[in-house]
Amino acid sequence: MEVPIVQAPMAGISLADMVSAVSGAGGLGSLGSSTLPLETIEAQVRVVRAGGGATRPFAVNFFCHTPPKLDEERARAMDRRLAPYRRELGLPEETGPHPAPPPPFGPQALELVLSLSPPVVSFHFGLPEPRALTAIQDAGIVVLSTATTVAEARILEDRGVDAIVAQGFEAGGHRGTFASDFADAQIGTLALVPQIVAAVSVPVIAAGGIVDGRGIAAALLLGAAAAQLGTAFLGCPEAQLDPLYRRTLSDPAAAARTRVTTLFSGRPARALVNRLVEELADLEGKTPDFPLQRFHTAPLGAAAAARGSADFNAMWAGQSAARLRAMPAAELCRTLARETSEALEHSPRR
Amino acid sequence: MEVPIVQAPMAGISLADMVSAVSGAGGLGSLGSSTLPLETIEAQVRVVRAGGGATRPFAVNFFCHTPPKLDEERARAMDRRLAPYRRELGLPEETGPHPAPPPPFGPQALELVLSLSPPVVSFHFGLPEPRALTAIQDAGIVVLSTATTVAEARILEDRGVDAIVAQGFEAGGHRGTFASDFADAQIGTLALVPQIVAAVSVPVIAAGGIVDGRGIAAALLLGAAAAQLGTAFLGCPEAQLDPLYRRTLSDPAAAARTRVTTLFSGRPARALVNRLVEELADLEGKTPDFPLQRFHTAPLGAAAAARGSADFNAMWAGQSAARLRAMPAAELCRTLARETSEALEHSPRR
Repeated sequence: MEVPIVQAPMAGISLADMVSAVSGAGGLGSLGSSTLPLETIEAQVRVVRAGGGATRPFAVNFFCHTPPKLDEERARAMDRRLAPYRRELGLPEETGPHPAPPPPFGPQALELVLSLSPPVVSFHFGLPEPRALTAIQDAGIVVLSTATTVAEARILEDRGVDAIVAQGFEAGGHRGTFASDFADAQIGTLALVPQIVAAVSVPVIAAGGIVDGRGIAAALLLGAAAAQLGTAFLGCPEAQLDPLYRRTLSDPAAAARTRVTTLFSGRPARALVNRLVEELADLEGKTPDFPLQRFHTAPLGAAAAARGSADFNAMWAGQSAARLRAMPAAELCRTLARETSEALEHSPRR
Repeated sequence: MEVPIVQAPMAGISLADMVSAVSGAGGLGSLGSSTLPLETIEAQVRVVRAGGGATRPFAVNFFCHTPPKLDEERARAMDRRLAPYRRELGLPEETGPHPAPPPPFGPQALELVLSLSPPVVSFHFGLPEPRALTAIQDAGIVVLSTATTVAEARILEDRGVDAIVAQGFEAGGHRGTFASDFADAQIGTLALVPQIVAAVSVPVIAAGGIVDGRGIAAALLLGAAAAQLGTAFLGCPEAQLDPLYRRTLSDPAAAARTRVTTLFSGRPARALVNRLVEELADLEGKTPDFPLQRFHTAPLGAAAAARGSADFNAMWAGQSAARLRAMPAAELCRTLARETSEALEHSPRR
């Protein structure tokens, strides 16, 4: 990387165009591939390699969650609770059988990774089983994973990752927490990064709340080797956002209110506050397992969005969302790099 | 101030010795006076002025909370819930009548402030009424208050404060939140500081998760004029901590687990996780009003502490508590100043 910027993998949002732009500009673009079918990932990587990622590093991202257990009772309770909203939105009373959820990283994904051999693979919610990890690293692929506590960072280092993303509480999207209690894993970036830097010897990438060069410079001063930014790239035309999500984000008052919630997916993730988050707050932690809850909430989000309402859709965003800038991803990378240098050159009290 | 360090006011913990040491070393010492009787504050200020604060700025701190409403039903429910713990700790079944709680900043405190004329007064939970504020500022006293959201920072600026403490989610002790929903006011320092700096024109003091010079340097890069550190000073011999609190903090595993909880005082505050925080988690937000809840929990904490147990006492601490250092406050200030300069001089990627 020529600039110390990782564009965070954002499932379904950061696709080949964005990855090409960021990697082409000297950062590390990350394909938001964790929820994509394997054949789509293959096609997307081909597009990246035909573009800015041709000669530059880029990352492909996978989830390593424990597969969900179907709890029929919780599912029915959730359906009952959501029934009035389905009626309000004109959805049929019956939800019908849910399709199989996208699986975590498994043998077929491993085969794809080994055949595509992307420069970097990043994992969220832990790591794959040891043999898969060894095979990936033996193929010369750099492996990243996310820690939300010092304990998790130590586990990742013991398992041999090449670098650790220290994900602060400010970060948008899913908390990467995989081995700590969620309540113990809500540590702000400014507190988390130096603790992880002190605890491990691999490079640490700071994530959470960083949207400009001053934030990147601050992360570097805290001992990070680079900064990972997700929300900052949501203002880019390359971000695959539906117009409603994009419009909501552009309203500073709406963008300032985010919450870590399990209500959209079944796992804690930071999103903009909307009617679903507020009216179902008593169900936090009582949803069907990740990612089964998506089957309950996604139809509501889509139906409301079709009516122009952001009441029910999942709009992932971090705590600096009110400060994002609308510009192409390559230009954003260059701007961030320039701001970072300026912040470090003109630092106060020299 | 010669060094850009505010020692956070810590009620009953940062008394004259610490204030003298910090102000003597070129920082801003803050008397943890918010829960002290007025005559004690007067005596403490006299001690500060006889010591390191003689010719240097120091701050006196007050709470501006709305006085609590006594909710007999909530109080009885809390007593019932705590009864088994009282039995376990050998406390009498009957709690007896509670004394009057310490009042928020009022006419007598104003009179004291005007007669003592400390260089700085800092407020928590908002500000006093306009006439009191005007009287204080007309007397040439610098006024600080805390914001936990951009909206609160704008209110404080409109009301004429001289500087704003931007208190990130990482901070130990009571959240200063006074005009925002508590759930919207859990913003990490790295995200909060630049947003408040952009929104107001008065100097911003960054607080939350900062315990070393790199953290201070990062805060300055984010646009803060100074950093406020509380937890960092808990390792100092001047900190008025009972030995159990001090010993618990010195265990990195215990110090790494903090939680924002209403259970100790009735208002959200970050403290080390102990048995009380875990076993009463379902009562979050259902306690008697601040500070009445202290009457319910303080006797449990004291009785357990007398038996050497940290199961029930309120041990305020921020998210970097595992990194605090045991050294005298003046030495800590000098160390922090040196580290800050070094971090800014030797910043990476120049």
